Amino acid sequence: MQTAKPIELNGKPAAGGKFPLICTPLTGRTRDQILAEVKVVLGKKPDILEWRVDFFDGIANATEVINVATAIKQAAGNMPLLFTRRSIREGGEKIALTEDEVISLYKAVCESRQVDLVDFEMSNHPAHIALVREASKANDIKLILSFHNFSSTPGSKTLKQRFLQADQLGADIAKVAVMSRNLDDVLTLLSATLAASRTLRIPLISISMGPYGSLTRLFGWAFGSALTFAVGANRSAPGQVPIEDLNTVLAILQKSMNGE
Amino acid sequence: MQTAKPIELNGKPAAGGKFPLICTPLTGRTRDQILAEVKVVLGKKPDILEWRVDFFDGIANATEVINVATAIKQAAGNMPLLFTRRSIREGGEKIALTEDEVISLYKAVCESRQVDLVDFEMSNHPAHIALVREASKANDIKLILSFHNFSSTPGSKTLKQRFLQADQLGADIAKVAVMSRNLDDVLTLLSATLAASRTLRIPLISISMGPYGSLTRLFGWAFGSALTFAVGANRSAPGQVPIEDLNTVLAILQKSMNGE
Repeated sequence: MQTAKPIELNGKPAAGGKFPLICTPLTGRTRDQILAEVKVVLGKKPDILEWRVDFFDGIANATEVINVATAIKQAAGNMPLLFTRRSIREGGEKIALTEDEVISLYKAVCESRQVDLVDFEMSNHPAHIALVREASKANDIKLILSFHNFSSTPGSKTLKQRFLQADQLGADIAKVAVMSRNLDDVLTLLSATLAASRTLRIPLISISMGPYGSLTRLFGWAFGSALTFAVGANRSAPGQVPIEDLNTVLAILQKSMNGE
Repeated sequence: MQTAKPIELNGKPAAGGKFPLICTPLTGRTRDQILAEVKVVLGKKPDILEWRVDFFDGIANATEVINVATAIKQAAGNMPLLFTRRSIREGGEKIALTEDEVISLYKAVCESRQVDLVDFEMSNHPAHIALVREASKANDIKLILSFHNFSSTPGSKTLKQRFLQADQLGADIAKVAVMSRNLDDVLTLLSATLAASRTLRIPLISISMGPYGSLTRLFGWAFGSALTFAVGANRSAPGQVPIEDLNTVLAILQKSMNGE
């Protein structure tokens, strides 16, 4: 019954067209920690892994980063891998790189072709966004342009603009993640998601964070969000639910909404 | 985290303050069918049973109706019983009683004190509503004043007026159940529920019917609905989900929203 756009990889819908995709973050600080996380997480059968490289101690060494990405892909039986440096400004960890060095890292990682998707924030410098877009496109890697607000939920108009902005900046996927302080915020996010899913040319990801927001992690797909983040081994944002719980709720909801 | 009002019976929150309450309909045509349904349903542990007396072949005989109500209460170990004649106009079955006879039946059932709550539609004649209010109050039975629309979801303003109208007519609980034809309708119902839960003095029940509406049966409580209907043995309205599924989803949602 949903008409939202699925995320495509290599020219076809990821995970055989499963909707929504379940993405689990990897937040280890060392190669060993990360590979141990992969092991735990794999047993829970996510559809995509997100490597939050801002947690990684070796981020300053591009070769080491690429080696770890390669090791993750190998350990995960080629499961799609999303590469993300989340900035401090948008809720990420402190890293020892300048913004120019971050761009070089994204470029090197794209050229290695060891990842399937990269996430880059729309609040970055337009020239940097253009460089990441260029490097990802040249290597057949999907680009998620993202917007995060860890303190509040902007109004519906602003949210819709953020989705649209990602599309206009050439993203393959638009992502908006905001903090909900009350249930009105949850409804605002769901309503903006529904509107954006009808107007955007590209798939979108929408998340409301925090306790109230956990509702959207479970039900946001019905309003058009093509992917939801779930806890495999470690939570990377407030309100993420365990992947087992998410799968249980999705199965019941989809059965109910299909009128079974 | 919810501040919505729970349904009270005998001066205290029903089912030990569980929120939301799960109510399962009984839709048998004969005493035997109804008691067989009770048996099936009890194993699934609902909090309230709703006897849809408009399905009952013996509805024209008040003594028989009271006998069956007594038998249900006995079989269900005194579980709270909601007595409902749903009119054809609002989605119910055809019955062999005039409206005056329906009022006499409600009066007799209230006086028998074999039920804990009665549901009566706000679209009934104001004089009839007043009589049912009087008979229920005189016998310490809670009155749900209800509004149903099986074809569409009215606008937010109309929905909020319906909740308010129930309060103004002296209801103990206000119920609004409407058909959702799309996801916008779901958001309209949730938004009106949230607004009404903040302004009404009484608890409320809100339901969106149909496949899209099944979302509200699972997470409408977060927006203020104190009770949700689930299928025990037989569905009585479109989109009702099995009680086992409902319990599973509620447990996961409440854990997530409490930040566990």
